[in-house]
Amino acid sequence: MAAEKKVEQITARDVDFAQWYTDVVKKAELVDYSSVKGCVILRPYAQALWENIRDILDGMFKATGHENVAMPLFIPESLLQKEKDHVAGFAPEVAWVTHGGTEKLTERLCVRPTSETLFCEHYAHIIQSWRDLPKLYNQWCSVVRWEKTTRPFLRSREFWWQEGHTIHATAEEAEAETRRMLETYADFAENDLALGLIKGRKTDSEKFAGAEHTYTIECMMHDGKALQSGTSHYFGDGFARAFGIQFTDKSNALRYPFQTSWGMSTRIIGGLIMTHGDDSGLVIPPRVAPIQAVVIPIAAHKPGVLDAARALAGTLRAAGLRVKLDESDQSPGWKFAEYEMKGIPLRIELGPRDIEQGQCVLARRDTGEKRPAPLAGLPEAAKALLEEIQASLLRAARANLAARTGTASTLDEMKALAPEGGFIKTMWCGDAACEEKVREVTGMKSRCVPFAPEHVGDTCVCCGKKTDTTLYWGFQY
Amino acid sequence: MAAEKKVEQITARDVDFAQWYTDVVKKAELVDYSSVKGCVILRPYAQALWENIRDILDGMFKATGHENVAMPLFIPESLLQKEKDHVAGFAPEVAWVTHGGTEKLTERLCVRPTSETLFCEHYAHIIQSWRDLPKLYNQWCSVVRWEKTTRPFLRSREFWWQEGHTIHATAEEAEAETRRMLETYADFAENDLALGLIKGRKTDSEKFAGAEHTYTIECMMHDGKALQSGTSHYFGDGFARAFGIQFTDKSNALRYPFQTSWGMSTRIIGGLIMTHGDDSGLVIPPRVAPIQAVVIPIAAHKPGVLDAARALAGTLRAAGLRVKLDESDQSPGWKFAEYEMKGIPLRIELGPRDIEQGQCVLARRDTGEKRPAPLAGLPEAAKALLEEIQASLLRAARANLAARTGTASTLDEMKALAPEGGFIKTMWCGDAACEEKVREVTGMKSRCVPFAPEHVGDTCVCCGKKTDTTLYWGFQY
Repeated sequence: MAAEKKVEQITARDVDFAQWYTDVVKKAELVDYSSVKGCVILRPYAQALWENIRDILDGMFKATGHENVAMPLFIPESLLQKEKDHVAGFAPEVAWVTHGGTEKLTERLCVRPTSETLFCEHYAHIIQSWRDLPKLYNQWCSVVRWEKTTRPFLRSREFWWQEGHTIHATAEEAEAETRRMLETYADFAENDLALGLIKGRKTDSEKFAGAEHTYTIECMMHDGKALQSGTSHYFGDGFARAFGIQFTDKSNALRYPFQTSWGMSTRIIGGLIMTHGDDSGLVIPPRVAPIQAVVIPIAAHKPGVLDAARALAGTLRAAGLRVKLDESDQSPGWKFAEYEMKGIPLRIELGPRDIEQGQCVLARRDTGEKRPAPLAGLPEAAKALLEEIQASLLRAARANLAARTGTASTLDEMKALAPEGGFIKTMWCGDAACEEKVREVTGMKSRCVPFAPEHVGDTCVCCGKKTDTTLYWGFQY
Repeated sequence: MAAEKKVEQITARDVDFAQWYTDVVKKAELVDYSSVKGCVILRPYAQALWENIRDILDGMFKATGHENVAMPLFIPESLLQKEKDHVAGFAPEVAWVTHGGTEKLTERLCVRPTSETLFCEHYAHIIQSWRDLPKLYNQWCSVVRWEKTTRPFLRSREFWWQEGHTIHATAEEAEAETRRMLETYADFAENDLALGLIKGRKTDSEKFAGAEHTYTIECMMHDGKALQSGTSHYFGDGFARAFGIQFTDKSNALRYPFQTSWGMSTRIIGGLIMTHGDDSGLVIPPRVAPIQAVVIPIAAHKPGVLDAARALAGTLRAAGLRVKLDESDQSPGWKFAEYEMKGIPLRIELGPRDIEQGQCVLARRDTGEKRPAPLAGLPEAAKALLEEIQASLLRAARANLAARTGTASTLDEMKALAPEGGFIKTMWCGDAACEEKVREVTGMKSRCVPFAPEHVGDTCVCCGKKTDTTLYWGFQY
């Protein structure tokens, strides 16, 4: 029995976190690199994970009345230029198509970096009256941003995401939508991905190009850096004015509608890896895991073992669990390491002695804990254990978030704390000059003003002016 | 009660089929045009239809062991050029990216027109041993081909599709896969989309660029033209040799693997429209319909009507049907026309008198037939009727296919028949020169050599040489 493919060692997290990350995404067979820098291939395991994420989020969107559409890949240069803040933010980092077949195009087309302009053009076609509002649209697609430094999932030239784009008769309705979708992201990130996060509003320096304001969820990673993981933008009627979108209200007056957009991307997979992974590889929360449990026959050559393992896998699948049975001729040890690397939440071992005793062995990926469990009633026991693993991962992520959140009252205090990473909470006067000075001194960027006010002092950490605004800071991915 | 949005008349099919088609895709709110020629927007109704198609096909792929991946959008020019027949077929019609941000790229990238070259590059990375085979991969994405003449769904510069790409240890296994996926397409097109079709092998002149052979399903439209609706290609080891993909077999010898690819696209929505639509608009087969039944309250202002309609819609949804309830203040007449235009298979009317009598009225979109039905047991009755509509649409499509298939023994016979359109079945010697001459004389192109031999003579329709090969001809979309 030749173990042709060896499970190789990965770099330990504490030795080199960046190398650990790169090792995990390759060894867990999540991605492969293509010959275009910054464009990766999502291998079946990553794609299955992304499809689980998509299906849960899509269900949440549809439950709140959203509909999916598909917009074109290309934006003419003149269309991108219609909203001036937006084009200033995106034009420097788009890919340009200049030729179709053998002919030079009369106008350059960019490959969409985001689709506000396309949605606006479409809205101008289809919205005439108050009857046509609201439109609550979303699309699942890939977008392209010509980044200089790239890392799989975290920052790539092409990435997959969903982008919601909605348009409303009133500012209040649009604002409520902006906030509702941010809460949807927070709900999903906490309850399905078990991430530790804070929610809040971006400062003006950090908001989306063209937005009046941007809400964000910021997740705390194992290494103390923050990952912006989902954002929701309120546009007011700025885009509507730039694109000439108007509707007649019930009193027959012509008015401009109000818009939002919001997005979550494959970046969140990077967040999942850096929150839960350990020195044996990935750890995937059960609710989104492509494989929730792997069944491994022990002494599979002995009579009855394979049959029993197949029956067990069948029973678990029939109960609605996502189960893999590994019948290959690799050794159990090889298989243990392989599925640890892939972060499968639950391993179920079944050998001749177990079968005699009417039991199997359950091994948790997160804690490593192993215990025997009776075969009778196993589907219920496995489900309960998966729920416990899910809850336990969230507890651990929240504990990391709490342990890595500090406060500072002065720039000196903050400078002393900053090298440890994590979030630092301070008061802030609201001035962009103070925000910039803190960044220069500490290297940390503002993450968000939390929704729930958190009183940690009375004066701005930088200039000392009186204020009641709290701001979170952190090093960012 | 103002019917602000009128259901406008569409051109009759017999007056101008092309205009009828354009009217339907706009008035049924399937697509909107973007400012880039040949790039359309899939509006919510078309996207929901495409997602139903995707989910059914994806289930069929996964049931046969296929896994989804996501490949990059861009192909470097040098990579596209590695297989010479393939690049010759596609290079003239690709969109070229020449700049990233403000910098000129050192090598042009094309926006994928199809992804064989990307899959090959990836396979070269991940395949070393017989243990790594087969790989049965698929992806859902959009691709770009810079067409000169464009029509929504039928021929566009960007379109959405799935592309399966598989790689096998033996030629036999790859050939079996090629044929299996073609049969999957035929099964889906007949049983879910209710299309009338023939299955067969493309001639060498019509096969895919780089393939050894191509299988196809060809659907017969209402106007007598043929629509190539799904293709499956066998590549032999040509791509493997061009891309240096090799594996060590069980005896430790280095060998080239064998490949296939297969695709079905949003084009199939055009086929659905042109098969089932009528002068009142779309007709969508129940199995893929985004809305299977629409409930329309009659005299909705009368007490109890809206409540009863809501209860009815709820009961049907609970039984697993996709149901819309239209509570808007538009008139019933406006609603009837609107949902006829959208091709919703079943309309359920419910008024005060119906409620008194414990019944509703069921109206079939396909035949226009209306009949009362008791509210008790309605979910079962509606399901049975939807199945009958599905079967009836397939019978009608097959009848159209049969009525529009003729045979010819000589070029003169064929020339006389051709103006009526449809398929013409002839014998053919296998010579590309004869194929080309028939096209010149009749305007018809070869569609396929049917899998099941159909003896319609002994000699080639063009040169008169003895042959036992049958060939289908037709005008094509």
